[in-house]
Amino acid sequence: MTSRTLYSLCGSDSTRPFSPHCWKTVLSLAHKGLDFEERPLAFTAIPGVENGFSKTVPILRDGDQLVKDSFDIALYLEDAYPDAPSLFNGEGGKSLARFVESWSQTTLHPAIAKFAIVDIHDTLDEPDRIYFRNSRTKLFGRTIEEVTANRDAEIAAFPAKLEPIRRMLGFQPFIGGDSPLFADYIVFGALQWVRVISGVDLFAQNDPVRDWFERCLDLHGARGRSVTAA
Amino acid sequence: MTSRTLYSLCGSDSTRPFSPHCWKTVLSLAHKGLDFEERPLAFTAIPGVENGFSKTVPILRDGDQLVKDSFDIALYLEDAYPDAPSLFNGEGGKSLARFVESWSQTTLHPAIAKFAIVDIHDTLDEPDRIYFRNSRTKLFGRTIEEVTANRDAEIAAFPAKLEPIRRMLGFQPFIGGDSPLFADYIVFGALQWVRVISGVDLFAQNDPVRDWFERCLDLHGARGRSVTAA
Repeated sequence: MTSRTLYSLCGSDSTRPFSPHCWKTVLSLAHKGLDFEERPLAFTAIPGVENGFSKTVPILRDGDQLVKDSFDIALYLEDAYPDAPSLFNGEGGKSLARFVESWSQTTLHPAIAKFAIVDIHDTLDEPDRIYFRNSRTKLFGRTIEEVTANRDAEIAAFPAKLEPIRRMLGFQPFIGGDSPLFADYIVFGALQWVRVISGVDLFAQNDPVRDWFERCLDLHGARGRSVTAA
Repeated sequence: MTSRTLYSLCGSDSTRPFSPHCWKTVLSLAHKGLDFEERPLAFTAIPGVENGFSKTVPILRDGDQLVKDSFDIALYLEDAYPDAPSLFNGEGGKSLARFVESWSQTTLHPAIAKFAIVDIHDTLDEPDRIYFRNSRTKLFGRTIEEVTANRDAEIAAFPAKLEPIRRMLGFQPFIGGDSPLFADYIVFGALQWVRVISGVDLFAQNDPVRDWFERCLDLHGARGRSVTAA
């Protein structure tokens, strides 16, 4: 039995973890070749584990270590398992991964919310639905139905937001170069979130970004395919 | 006398080189502590140097080596001068810099064209004006005046495009981390282009991105300030 536990996020179906940040950590652990038990939690169950260590997931327990936040977990794994394949390939890769994270958080995540937030709500059990609706109404200053009022237009506008990845793929098959790094998992996490929650097609026709996403789904024993598309 | 020559780009005033890509190379050379003679050229003069080696600048002559393209020049400098400060801090930094370049090229550059392209035209001498107007009309499928038809709105929309940098600066002072790397010079080049050509203010009020840009202007003996704002 492993002493490593990843607390992640799910709705009413615990076999369908969906958090983008937790998917980053799932692939980070797989990248390092580390086994772990994944424990998907409801939103409202998070404060009840590990003595309320964190309000958000992912939370990683690794023996007597507790780490939260997907980026901090990746940094932790890089330090703790230096002989396993690197998640950053050097200090420059670490610093620039923070830019990739910031791009994903400010460009992809807000765009995804505008078409997927009601889908997320609908996958939750009742206590989480109340928590989610209240916290997101406060965050966005309007109801989740209002956030997704232009759903079709937001979906149609999404492929253009992937243009930086699309151009980069003209030079190399992964953000990490010839093979993936944590930076790939950052962007993968956002798109996998949509795949599990909404199943909306986010790519253009003959899109090299689709090919990159499929390559990411195939990584580490096709871990990303362990949950089917919605 | 140095055997290193950087061919860059200018309009009628050769003391005001403006190409974003050439500014990336100016700071790359300064970062490596290498002296060089900068030779700013008109657009139409580029095919006349180094036996038509390249249709675009930057072109670097380093002794008997000729290299073109700002990214390829940075890679060349990293290999040729491994004992000087690194431009990438490792292989991961190289790969992720390609993403930063792709983001800048697909997000910042097209936005800048929509307010600065007539300003660029107006700085050029007559033969270059004809070349520039024709090539850009072909590229955009409309006149340069039509491209900048919503100039004020494009300028107003620009600060939001810097949001990934803004969020990242909450974690670290440079894209490269504690100190700048080539990735910083990529984004600096785009903003310095605007500074030299248009002098338009691209930042929000109390914008940490402005502070980062000012830090970049101060680097390497304030090389970026050697040309004043338009």
